[in-house]
Amino acid sequence: MSERARNKPVPAEGRFAYEGLDRAIHEKARLGILTSLAAHPKGLPFGELKELCSLTDGNLNRHLAVLEEAGLIEASRTTGRGRPQTTVMLTAAGRRRFEQYIAVLEQVVVDAMAAQRRPAAARNPKLSAGYQPA
Amino acid sequence: MSERARNKPVPAEGRFAYEGLDRAIHEKARLGILTSLAAHPKGLPFGELKELCSLTDGNLNRHLAVLEEAGLIEASRTTGRGRPQTTVMLTAAGRRRFEQYIAVLEQVVVDAMAAQRRPAAARNPKLSAGYQPA
Repeated sequence: MSERARNKPVPAEGRFAYEGLDRAIHEKARLGILTSLAAHPKGLPFGELKELCSLTDGNLNRHLAVLEEAGLIEASRTTGRGRPQTTVMLTAAGRRRFEQYIAVLEQVVVDAMAAQRRPAAARNPKLSAGYQPA
Repeated sequence: MSERARNKPVPAEGRFAYEGLDRAIHEKARLGILTSLAAHPKGLPFGELKELCSLTDGNLNRHLAVLEEAGLIEASRTTGRGRPQTTVMLTAAGRRRFEQYIAVLEQVVVDAMAAQRRPAAARNPKLSAGYQPA
């Protein structure tokens, strides 16, 4: 520990730790997948999800496995005319945890805007109302 | 590619790809470090940065190496009374890239907020029409 840190109390310890940024959700591709699914409550076919997130089959499969293991999404396989199709959707717990994560992300944006000395509300009025987890 | 994806054009391809989420910045600990530094334009001593981000010496050193390699931060070592001290600050390019990243993060939050409103309207069609006073 430095001389300075020993001699004076450091205010706001952990102020920028952002513990709520769940690593299962925070990874870039998975964040895109979860935001897509949050916007489509009835779920999305594998092929559409792949296009929306610009992922390959292999990458999407790999990330879906992580999200399913974490209990955030579920996949169901349906057969009808043509090929069988996999539909992916958020679980109820997944939606809750995603909403909690987004509340932390919003705090990061607000902190960064404050650092730029630009009021959040001036740049985007939607943010000033605050994100309300359900 | 699925039958469906081949037969109809998928609108908004890459809509949720969030390409601007630079991986050097997006990692959870590094995001905290950069937000701390953005809020302290004159830089922060290593010890304070460590406390603000709740990181160990080893972890902070590892992440600072990644950020320095990416040209986002610079570290300077000063000697005065007591022990030499390392001060870390954003580079000019680092501040610009951090601001660009935050703009994408803001888009994720706005997308997630829009997604949160949609299910309510789907459950109750009256909501989408707005409140109609008698």
